[in-house]
Amino acid sequence: MTETPALLLTPGPLTTSAATRHAMLRDWGSRDEAFIALTARVRRRLVELAHGEDRLVAVPLQGSGTFVVEATIATLLPPSGKLLVLVNGAYGKRMVEMTRRLGRAVLALETPEDQVPDLEALEATLRADAGITHVAAVQCETTSGILNPIEGVADIVARHGRHLLIDAMSAFGALPLDARRVPFTALMASSNKCLEGVPGLGFALVAREALVAAAGNCPSLSLDLHAQWKGFEANGQWRFTPPTHVLAAFDAALEQHAQEGGSEGRGARYAANHKTLVAGMRALGFETLLPDALQAPIIVTFHSPSDPEFDFERFYQAIASRGFLIYPGKLTVAESFRIGCIGQVFEADMRRAVAAVGEALGEQGIRNPGRSKAA
Amino acid sequence: MTETPALLLTPGPLTTSAATRHAMLRDWGSRDEAFIALTARVRRRLVELAHGEDRLVAVPLQGSGTFVVEATIATLLPPSGKLLVLVNGAYGKRMVEMTRRLGRAVLALETPEDQVPDLEALEATLRADAGITHVAAVQCETTSGILNPIEGVADIVARHGRHLLIDAMSAFGALPLDARRVPFTALMASSNKCLEGVPGLGFALVAREALVAAAGNCPSLSLDLHAQWKGFEANGQWRFTPPTHVLAAFDAALEQHAQEGGSEGRGARYAANHKTLVAGMRALGFETLLPDALQAPIIVTFHSPSDPEFDFERFYQAIASRGFLIYPGKLTVAESFRIGCIGQVFEADMRRAVAAVGEALGEQGIRNPGRSKAA
Repeated sequence: MTETPALLLTPGPLTTSAATRHAMLRDWGSRDEAFIALTARVRRRLVELAHGEDRLVAVPLQGSGTFVVEATIATLLPPSGKLLVLVNGAYGKRMVEMTRRLGRAVLALETPEDQVPDLEALEATLRADAGITHVAAVQCETTSGILNPIEGVADIVARHGRHLLIDAMSAFGALPLDARRVPFTALMASSNKCLEGVPGLGFALVAREALVAAAGNCPSLSLDLHAQWKGFEANGQWRFTPPTHVLAAFDAALEQHAQEGGSEGRGARYAANHKTLVAGMRALGFETLLPDALQAPIIVTFHSPSDPEFDFERFYQAIASRGFLIYPGKLTVAESFRIGCIGQVFEADMRRAVAAVGEALGEQGIRNPGRSKAA
Repeated sequence: MTETPALLLTPGPLTTSAATRHAMLRDWGSRDEAFIALTARVRRRLVELAHGEDRLVAVPLQGSGTFVVEATIATLLPPSGKLLVLVNGAYGKRMVEMTRRLGRAVLALETPEDQVPDLEALEATLRADAGITHVAAVQCETTSGILNPIEGVADIVARHGRHLLIDAMSAFGALPLDARRVPFTALMASSNKCLEGVPGLGFALVAREALVAAAGNCPSLSLDLHAQWKGFEANGQWRFTPPTHVLAAFDAALEQHAQEGGSEGRGARYAANHKTLVAGMRALGFETLLPDALQAPIIVTFHSPSDPEFDFERFYQAIASRGFLIYPGKLTVAESFRIGCIGQVFEADMRRAVAAVGEALGEQGIRNPGRSKAA
């Protein structure tokens, strides 16, 4: 299709369906009843996806995922609070940085990028420091692609009576997270990851009770999630101009998500994409950063070939010229690149992508892309 | 066209062209060179529109116009600074509120919603208070539709050696503002006003020198305009996921803006729309809030009919059913409604809109919509 010159094998923005993009061909009056109904439908669907029932409310926010993560922390963490962040990648680190900038107390509990958070250390830290009021964790850290044990984290945090904030950005809509079983105070995600909308919108699912209690906490008018919520509750409208076309696309994407069988159906397709990708890449001789048991079926980090002939820029271009955009690595510890399994891509696409990778390797004359055997 | 069931006669989001909306049918890799080139082109065009040459840099930001106004204040106003805001409507008030929330010193110099800022009072205030480091003013206050004397404000602020921040949200791209003649430190606007893009993006044009000096000022990671700029300068990429489709639409809209003759051509069309609208509405018996000399050709506030039979909700629906969405009033002092002149609308549309208003009045049996003569 000329509309999408390349498939995006990235952690997002990713490839969307034609139906989702075509939903942007209409202009909406942002205070008109048709758009108010659209906003209400999207908010209701998001709560249903997490089985939030009467406990959670959905608060969409203009901007990228980072905006809604910051808004959630700035709104829910009171000036007297203290946040503990479980860090094993760039997104955990970013939460530490934004909280520090806000002038709020924050601690990091760090594990290496290829290891999950240390649950015993979490337990010990909470036991030792009664001042910690909130814990933040990333469900799928796209820095590496690791799947963090969010249910285990949630159990511990709940047992210690603290609030859990889950960055579910790259997981929500494909990996299970059921609010009836997993206790949390807020979950943050965005339109343009596993829900396959276009970028421009984040959202938080927040326990109503916690949101009510958070009035006045946020030093930013734009990022005040409590005020944003009160706006929706008052008249169904957005406080400030919403990205109307992006929201219309998101509404269409949520409908397609339901038709695919919800998070289960979506997750099954991504798992198949992931399996095809990893099998194909391993057959070419690539090594994954993570053992299979730690890997989420969202995005996979591969070690770069250690062959000195390997040139990532040429490799990227050779694959791009074959219709696939891959992603550079974000690890601090090793040379790597990433290939995503999410968006409107299917097993046949993954097979073609692997073939493109093989051809790109061949162009650089690299026979064995393993990191230890070559060079 | 079924794509746009109604024309949006609002202050934005507004009616866009089919070419602008169709530019959203492609997915972009946000770190791919094609998107980096698109971002660079948009940033360059924005600087050129203000004749910013080497002095100004363009910093686009995810979110609504309010986000970029807050980001500009939070970044440029240091913790030791003090902001004076010229207030004659909701947008001036909002700047006061967001600055107070940020914990920074702020003063308001207020005039009624139907009067321009008092330049003598501005001069006296700056003379009396050497602690004021920055002044903020709204070029076109859409609360009323008033055109504020931004050049007069800029002269005074410059003469006193303070920094001027201009909220040009509803003016930029249609009303003149030439950085070679009008001294200012920053100008804030958005994609979805006179530049006729879709909503989801704001931008600031900032004096490079001031931005360099502002490193570390902003307490918000997401809204840090200095860090956002450094990101673009480093590798041409956005720090955090950009609204790719919105940016592609904006790029297309900027090209159409140039083809229409830039701000002069765009402004001339809006002026013609405005003239047709006001003449038609006056012929129906409506009264404008503002005298013609104070009115910007962007959005017009009309007094609501004082006839007790008048019901705004029915009036709105009757006009909507004829293909036009108008806007409720935002005045604190009088019952009113607003009709916008901006977006992809033309004189013939304004004539049809006036006819629709006349029919809507007729449905309510109102013969004389004047505010003083009826009732």
